[in-house]
Amino acid sequence: MPTIHAWGNREGGAPLSRHAVTLTDPGPDEVLLEVLYCGLCHSDLGHIDEQRSAAAEPVVAGHEVVGRVVAAGSEVDPQRLGQLCGLGFIAGSCRHCRHCLSGRQTLCADLESTILGRPGGFASHVKAHQDWAIPLPDGLDPAAAGPLLCAGVTVFEPLFSAGISPTAHVAVIGVGGLGHLALQLARAWGCQVTGITTSSSKTAEILSLGAHRVQLLGELNQQQGAYDLIINTSNHALDWDAVVASLAPGGSLHQLGLCATPIPLRVFPFVKGNLSFRASLTSTPANTARLLEFCARHGIQPLVEVLPMDQINTAIARLRRGDVRYRFVLQGPA
Amino acid sequence: MPTIHAWGNREGGAPLSRHAVTLTDPGPDEVLLEVLYCGLCHSDLGHIDEQRSAAAEPVVAGHEVVGRVVAAGSEVDPQRLGQLCGLGFIAGSCRHCRHCLSGRQTLCADLESTILGRPGGFASHVKAHQDWAIPLPDGLDPAAAGPLLCAGVTVFEPLFSAGISPTAHVAVIGVGGLGHLALQLARAWGCQVTGITTSSSKTAEILSLGAHRVQLLGELNQQQGAYDLIINTSNHALDWDAVVASLAPGGSLHQLGLCATPIPLRVFPFVKGNLSFRASLTSTPANTARLLEFCARHGIQPLVEVLPMDQINTAIARLRRGDVRYRFVLQGPA
Repeated sequence: MPTIHAWGNREGGAPLSRHAVTLTDPGPDEVLLEVLYCGLCHSDLGHIDEQRSAAAEPVVAGHEVVGRVVAAGSEVDPQRLGQLCGLGFIAGSCRHCRHCLSGRQTLCADLESTILGRPGGFASHVKAHQDWAIPLPDGLDPAAAGPLLCAGVTVFEPLFSAGISPTAHVAVIGVGGLGHLALQLARAWGCQVTGITTSSSKTAEILSLGAHRVQLLGELNQQQGAYDLIINTSNHALDWDAVVASLAPGGSLHQLGLCATPIPLRVFPFVKGNLSFRASLTSTPANTARLLEFCARHGIQPLVEVLPMDQINTAIARLRRGDVRYRFVLQGPA
Repeated sequence: MPTIHAWGNREGGAPLSRHAVTLTDPGPDEVLLEVLYCGLCHSDLGHIDEQRSAAAEPVVAGHEVVGRVVAAGSEVDPQRLGQLCGLGFIAGSCRHCRHCLSGRQTLCADLESTILGRPGGFASHVKAHQDWAIPLPDGLDPAAAGPLLCAGVTVFEPLFSAGISPTAHVAVIGVGGLGHLALQLARAWGCQVTGITTSSSKTAEILSLGAHRVQLLGELNQQQGAYDLIINTSNHALDWDAVVASLAPGGSLHQLGLCATPIPLRVFPFVKGNLSFRASLTSTPANTARLLEFCARHGIQPLVEVLPMDQINTAIARLRRGDVRYRFVLQGPA
C-alpha cells in the first residue's frame, strides 16, 4: 500500500495542492511508475474544474506521463523494473472483449482512464496495466516525450489507422498542442502538408514545423478540392461548408477537436465527392509504440516548456490564457 | 446521323411525348445501344420536372438501360455488335485524369451523364462510351436487370468499396428501389442484415428480401451499438442522434439518400466511438461489372413492374405517389 504525493483539488476549479494519497499495491498485471515528467493537456483542465460534491479523495489529473517502473505485479516480467515508459490517457482495458482481442482496445467498453476515479500523473507515482505503460525507445528526450502519449497518439491516428498514403495532400487546422505535432508527423509521413491557421503571424513557425504551405482559415474557400485529408484539431465551430469544399474527391475530414456544437454536413457534396467524416480520440498500445518509434526515427518531438511540478498552478493559469508553445511539462518529483 | 425516337418534354413537369431526335454518329470509342428496357429512377423525376427556358430539344430521362449494341465507333471491338449491355447514370469520363487512371472514374471532374445535356434511355437508342456499356452476364433477366445499373451500384458501393466484412452487422434504412436491393446484397455478402422501416406492415416482405431482422425506425434508440454499417437510403431528415447511437464502435453511417437538410453530427459520439460518416453516388465500370456478376451468381434481381414504353406517363404518375414495388421498367421499342 504505497503512499504517494499528488497535486490535486477537492473542489472543482480550486488551485491544486500537494496531498498524500494511499494507493493499493499493483495488481498482478500492473506496474507502478515513478513519475519523472507529466504533460499538461487541455482535457486536464476539464477534469480539474469539474464540479463535484465533497470528493473524499482529491482529484488528480495528468495523463502524459514519462516515468520509470519501480514496482510490478507477479505477472509482469521482472526485467521491466527500472524501465523508462510512457503512459497516456488510458491505463487499462478489459482484454477479453472482441475489440481488445482484435487489437482495437480503444473501442473497449471497459476502458480504465489514467485520471478518472483514480489519481493521475501529477504525482510522485502512478499505476497502469503493464500493456499501457509503453517502453520509451532510445532517441526520445524523456523531458519532451510526455505529450506524445496523448496529443501525439491523437494526431497519429488519422494518418496511421486510416491508412493515409504518403502521396496525400494533408491539411492541419489549428496549430497548438495537437496541431504542432500533426504538422511534424504528416511531413515525416511523406505527405504534402498545409498548416491552416487564423493568423498569418504564425507562418514562419508553421513552416518550421514541417508544413510546405500555410493557409489562412478565413481564405479556405479559395482552396476548393485541395486536400485528401484534413486533420481538424480545433474545437471551434468552423465554416463547415468551406472546410468540406476544400476536400479533394474521395477526401476525408478527420475531427479531433471536441467541438461542442453538432457539425452540420450537407449531403450532396459528400455524396458527389465520395467524402467521409471520421473522428477518433486516442490510440492503442501497439500504435502508441509505433508512434514512439516513428518519432525517435524522425526526430519528432513536442515543443515543451518544462516547469517543476510545484509550479503546476502557474502552468494551469498560463494554459488557461493560451500562453504556451505548445505544451507544459511538469517535472517531478511531486 | 441516326434519327431515334425518345420520350421527353420541353417544359419542366409536362407529360412526356414521343419525339424524333437526331443523334450524331457514335464517336470512335462510343457504342449505340438499342434500348430494350429502361428503369425509372426517382432522380429521373427531378430531371423531367426541372424548370428550363424554352429548351430547343426535348429533355429525355432514363439511366437504367438494358440494350443491345447496334453500332460502334472505330476503336470498339467489332465483336461487341449485338452484345447485351447495361448502362447507368454515367456514360463517360475523361479517361486521362488521375482519378480515371486510378480506376476511380466516378471522381472525374468531367463525367458525362447519360441524361444531362443529351437524350437518355427512354428512347429507341442511347449512346455511351464503350467502357460504360457493361456486358450483361448470363443468368440475369434483361427485363429486370436495368435498376442494377443505378440503384444496384449505388447500394453496392458501401459494401464493396468500403471493404465491409461478411462478419459485419449491417442495417438498411428504407425499403424502396435502393433498399430492397441493399437487403439482398448484404445478405449475399454474408452479413447479419437488419431492415429498418417506418411500418411493421412491411415485415414479411423485408424478411423475404433477405433480412434476418426487422427494426422499426422509431424504435432505433433501443438498438444502441448494434450496427457496424448503416446504409441509409432514405432522403428524409431522421433522428440522427438515434441513428448514430445505433452504430457499433468503429461503425459507419453510409448516406445514399439525398437529404435536403444538413445532417447535424455531434462530435463526441464520433470521437469516442471512432465512427465515420461516408457517402457516395454511383460506382465505376469495373465495380458495376463486379456487381452484375455477383447478382447473377446469387440470383439477386430487382423486383420490377414492366410496362411498355408508351405507358411511361402512367409509370411516372404512379411513382410520384409511391405506388410501385420497387421499380418500374419501361420496355422498348420506344
